[in-house]
Amino acid sequence: MTTATPTKSSTTEYDELITLVRKASLLGSTAALVDWDQETMMPPRGVEHRSRQLAQLASIHHHLATDPRIGDLLDACESDQRLVGVATAPEAVNIREVRRRYERHKKLPAELVEELAKVSSLAHHVWAEARKASDFDRFRPWLEKIVELNRRKAECYGWSDDGEPWDALAEDYETGCTAADVQAVFTPLRKRLQDFLSDLMASSTRPSNTFNEITLPIEQQEKFVRDVSKHIGFDYSRGRLDRSTHPFCSGTHCHDVRLTTRFHEANVNDALGSTMHESGHGIYEQGLLAEHIGTPMGHAVSLGIHESQSRMWENQVGRSREFWVWCMPKVTEYFGDAVASLGLDDLYGGANIVKPDFIRVEADELTYNMHIMIRFEIERAIMRGDLAVRDIPGVWNRTYKEYLDLDVPDDRRGCLQDIHWSSGDIGYFPTYTLGNLYSAQFFEAALEAMPDLLEQFEKGEFGGLKKWLNENIHAHGRRYRAADLCRTVTGKPLTADPLLRHLERKLRPLYGL
Amino acid sequence: MTTATPTKSSTTEYDELITLVRKASLLGSTAALVDWDQETMMPPRGVEHRSRQLAQLASIHHHLATDPRIGDLLDACESDQRLVGVATAPEAVNIREVRRRYERHKKLPAELVEELAKVSSLAHHVWAEARKASDFDRFRPWLEKIVELNRRKAECYGWSDDGEPWDALAEDYETGCTAADVQAVFTPLRKRLQDFLSDLMASSTRPSNTFNEITLPIEQQEKFVRDVSKHIGFDYSRGRLDRSTHPFCSGTHCHDVRLTTRFHEANVNDALGSTMHESGHGIYEQGLLAEHIGTPMGHAVSLGIHESQSRMWENQVGRSREFWVWCMPKVTEYFGDAVASLGLDDLYGGANIVKPDFIRVEADELTYNMHIMIRFEIERAIMRGDLAVRDIPGVWNRTYKEYLDLDVPDDRRGCLQDIHWSSGDIGYFPTYTLGNLYSAQFFEAALEAMPDLLEQFEKGEFGGLKKWLNENIHAHGRRYRAADLCRTVTGKPLTADPLLRHLERKLRPLYGL
Repeated sequence: MTTATPTKSSTTEYDELITLVRKASLLGSTAALVDWDQETMMPPRGVEHRSRQLAQLASIHHHLATDPRIGDLLDACESDQRLVGVATAPEAVNIREVRRRYERHKKLPAELVEELAKVSSLAHHVWAEARKASDFDRFRPWLEKIVELNRRKAECYGWSDDGEPWDALAEDYETGCTAADVQAVFTPLRKRLQDFLSDLMASSTRPSNTFNEITLPIEQQEKFVRDVSKHIGFDYSRGRLDRSTHPFCSGTHCHDVRLTTRFHEANVNDALGSTMHESGHGIYEQGLLAEHIGTPMGHAVSLGIHESQSRMWENQVGRSREFWVWCMPKVTEYFGDAVASLGLDDLYGGANIVKPDFIRVEADELTYNMHIMIRFEIERAIMRGDLAVRDIPGVWNRTYKEYLDLDVPDDRRGCLQDIHWSSGDIGYFPTYTLGNLYSAQFFEAALEAMPDLLEQFEKGEFGGLKKWLNENIHAHGRRYRAADLCRTVTGKPLTADPLLRHLERKLRPLYGL
Repeated sequence: MTTATPTKSSTTEYDELITLVRKASLLGSTAALVDWDQETMMPPRGVEHRSRQLAQLASIHHHLATDPRIGDLLDACESDQRLVGVATAPEAVNIREVRRRYERHKKLPAELVEELAKVSSLAHHVWAEARKASDFDRFRPWLEKIVELNRRKAECYGWSDDGEPWDALAEDYETGCTAADVQAVFTPLRKRLQDFLSDLMASSTRPSNTFNEITLPIEQQEKFVRDVSKHIGFDYSRGRLDRSTHPFCSGTHCHDVRLTTRFHEANVNDALGSTMHESGHGIYEQGLLAEHIGTPMGHAVSLGIHESQSRMWENQVGRSREFWVWCMPKVTEYFGDAVASLGLDDLYGGANIVKPDFIRVEADELTYNMHIMIRFEIERAIMRGDLAVRDIPGVWNRTYKEYLDLDVPDDRRGCLQDIHWSSGDIGYFPTYTLGNLYSAQFFEAALEAMPDLLEQFEKGEFGGLKKWLNENIHAHGRRYRAADLCRTVTGKPLTADPLLRHLERKLRPLYGL
């Protein structure tokens, strides 16, 4: 790929702009840390005070991010051709993206920002308890409050004449992506995935599930997944790995990136998959350039692109036969006798079982996307006002029956399973499936650039892929929007074909088709 | 003790004042959390960015704490007798203490506050490396910078005509305490402790040291100390315990109190002592009243009083024979065969070995105070300008020879051992010995109020002491200054007699005197 030469010039106005932007971003990074602490470290009784801390930080951040001086400086910079003459130069990128965020921030009243931060922090804990008790009614009033606040937020942002409220929210996660865009991708994808799923389920051949049925001590699991994540390229001098109910990656800046994972004695593949997934996010964050910390050029493109990085390490790498060729001796090293009878087919097969089930985060590569489609349809309807919060469980369960032929037994394994809505994140879910699509398409491009890539994995060499991702995706920060990045890196717009090719090529042989 | 009835009245001005004070305090609690994270969780490469985060928080905090509106509101409140008529009523206490802090904050330029936060955060990491390498010269330029900034700080604060720069700094840790006050207590105390130490060292009888010579697995040690800290009253639903090089307690508010400890396989008493010590701090923080969070009435009195609480649980409780009567079965429960041959005398004796040694935080109850006196003399001389930073190692080593008859082998075990100066804390050390003195004096008062207290410990009943401390000390927040609290609780001003009585009563029999 080609990159425009950055303009060498910079101006006093531009320098002052970047100083102000970095100030807001620095405070944002503190809020991210405080949020991470809430998920991983905070004692149970700390929640009330924490919600006040987060609301205060959100309010100060909003104040810094809407400083009218930023608007004045943007005006000055935008009319300076030395700065904006080359659209992909760092200065031009920063000016464009700061303008976009500044205009959005300005549309939200400070009071709403503060309220959203406070309610989300509190609601999150009610959700965790409601989930434990499988009691939707306990969470319902909080979700209603969150929906109401998000509707106000959407109205502040506004949406285009042929658009809808959901678009206004999604813009924060996937710039330029509308509900109509998502629907246009999802409808045919669902059809093709459902047909393929039927074929697989009808087959009498199945991959070996033995590896998933062995209980392994959590202490050893932790050493194992740390070793793997380090080996594929996550840098522990610039990050850490902890435990949380819902695995996540919190990147406050490229020198302090925090992953979480979780462990079940009964299934090491869950911990491994989560860890490789979050490591992929982490490698992206660590791959952003330190010189651009606190500016759009040092920021990930979008959640969809972020997810493409996590999915690539989780799926394209971690569920490949070649990965397991390398990993098999490690499994033996960490788990000894308990896995002595297993062969490569058991490990590779165990990582590739397709089975419709209730829980999104435990889903296989194929059915995962159905979980996303269901959530997207529900949040879209909610935001349109076509669906009331109290009716979510009914719709949820009906759609699971229709798409995955499952009878949801309770809300814990149904509409209470995900953290997102409780954190105030509506419009976020589709980025997961977009990530799957981007991931497959990027990986085909990587394979084209490095035809021996899979053989490298067999030898435990993951540095080639990491370097390619660093150079082609991470180092650019927000230089390109997601769709442009896709075209720049792969030469084509995003399509579902690479993902379907990837799934078919791998799963057909495993299922004897 | 008697407590003045709080005035029921409150005014609009007072309410607004408290709102502003709470705002500044809320941000301060975030800074404390970010600081805790730096000590316990932050990956090594995060330090540069962290120093910027802390500097920004310090600057915003300074801005909030010096809001001129606070000054106006204080003026209004101070002239309202309904508020300030009864000096020990919550409103009067808050107004008095807010005024004191406001005047101090106002004296510091924002730029100095920010610079101090940034330099301390960076210097701290240089210190940690310099200590590891036992290389004072690596740390020297940073300490010089810290001393210079603290000298500027002292000049901003000012000191009385018969005072000195050290006084201006100590005021932040121990309100109203001057170098002359400290010297007046320390000089006779040193003489008495040195004489007593000579007697002990001359004796041919020694307590059993067997318990300290047994290697015990760290995993079990951790379970053991957690159990003990929970049992004595630290509430884990409102706090947590982690590991750090230098144990500390970070109380951001009474519902989120964080302790750290450390473990050495070779000595469980180090982990136990540290944990009981920090639990004592934690029990104090958790004993502050939730209704007063963010105001002086919800804040600990001073570091000396804070230390009295940690020392009481560490020494008066944790080094008593009665504690070990209760604890012995727990030792057996957690360490099994490894401790099977030990009796009560081994456990009680092992906790009470007196031996001059290099490291302050590992020192026994008696010699500990000598370590403090040496540090106090050095920092006092530094602040007066009588001693240059480069001459610290020489003076340190000479004084260790004079006071403790020790030849300091290297700076790691000498003047680089403590975190305080690297964190910018000059004027802090004497509060440790003041804490020892307060602790002994408070404990005598507790024994007078509950003559069967020690028998309660034998039965594992620590709730009586905790309740007494909650009611007589914790619940008052900053109602009294340290010296007044001491007189209110014990009926007498602070003297060294209770500490010496405590040490003599316990140690003479153990050393056959």
